[in-house]
Amino acid sequence: MAIIILGIDPGTRITGYGLIRVHNNTIEPVDFGCIRPPATLPLQQRYRIIFDAVEQLIEKHQPESIAVESQFVLKNPQSAIKLGMAKGMILLAGARRNIEVHEYAPTKAKQAVVGNGSASKAQVQRMIASLLRLPTLPEPEDAADALALAICHAHTKRS
Amino acid sequence: MAIIILGIDPGTRITGYGLIRVHNNTIEPVDFGCIRPPATLPLQQRYRIIFDAVEQLIEKHQPESIAVESQFVLKNPQSAIKLGMAKGMILLAGARRNIEVHEYAPTKAKQAVVGNGSASKAQVQRMIASLLRLPTLPEPEDAADALALAICHAHTKRS
Repeated sequence: MAIIILGIDPGTRITGYGLIRVHNNTIEPVDFGCIRPPATLPLQQRYRIIFDAVEQLIEKHQPESIAVESQFVLKNPQSAIKLGMAKGMILLAGARRNIEVHEYAPTKAKQAVVGNGSASKAQVQRMIASLLRLPTLPEPEDAADALALAICHAHTKRS
Repeated sequence: MAIIILGIDPGTRITGYGLIRVHNNTIEPVDFGCIRPPATLPLQQRYRIIFDAVEQLIEKHQPESIAVESQFVLKNPQSAIKLGMAKGMILLAGARRNIEVHEYAPTKAKQAVVGNGSASKAQVQRMIASLLRLPTLPEPEDAADALALAICHAHTKRS
């Protein structure tokens, strides 16, 4: 049976998302892109836009699970709190639909896709395009990162 | 006309809340306490509990605005991300009801209540009990901090 996995790379300015369909040993792209709340809006409106957009993606595609980026190295506590607020939207959207959210470090996602945990964002984009047979590179980079998280979760589930 | 202000001191383990009614120059306590999601639950369930509880407080008391603690000094990025996730629940719950969320530093809330930005938590508890004519000290400390945030916002609105 085919399952859908939703990968998300959360951020206050740009939240990348990528959905894949996994069936036996094949992985197909379903949808990808990014959520960009207008930077002129108050923060609480921007988080609401992220939350609503993730709820809509869940509603439309009915993913079996969500893979989200976990970040460990953040020098600025204010950036960490803002990232946490964006990430909280993903966890809540999942929890309200009883969808488990799994966290993967960026190095783990890169390892799963490129075979190298310190691969560049451009390498990730090229490899995602190749693996998913996309006609062009997935844009923006945040969408490619989200697809990498979804693929990473698919590999982890299989093994 | 009387207005209700909801103060919240967010945290993954304990989220304190305090509601006050402001009418002319009088401030009365309405409700206070804390949200303690079981520490054994997965993080996403714990944030959902915080979100649902804040939504219920809003539904029940119809606050005109929300005052939340802003924190600037956090050494551990993981703590900052977790705090951000908890705080994101407050911002989202407010945004979904079109209630503005205002942020105040802990020093500002202490200054508003005790007259000293570096007051101890015990001093805040005693002064809150005195200002609101409570029969006992507000417990836990997080609830007293939340009431202090609400009072701080009431003062800021007035001036």
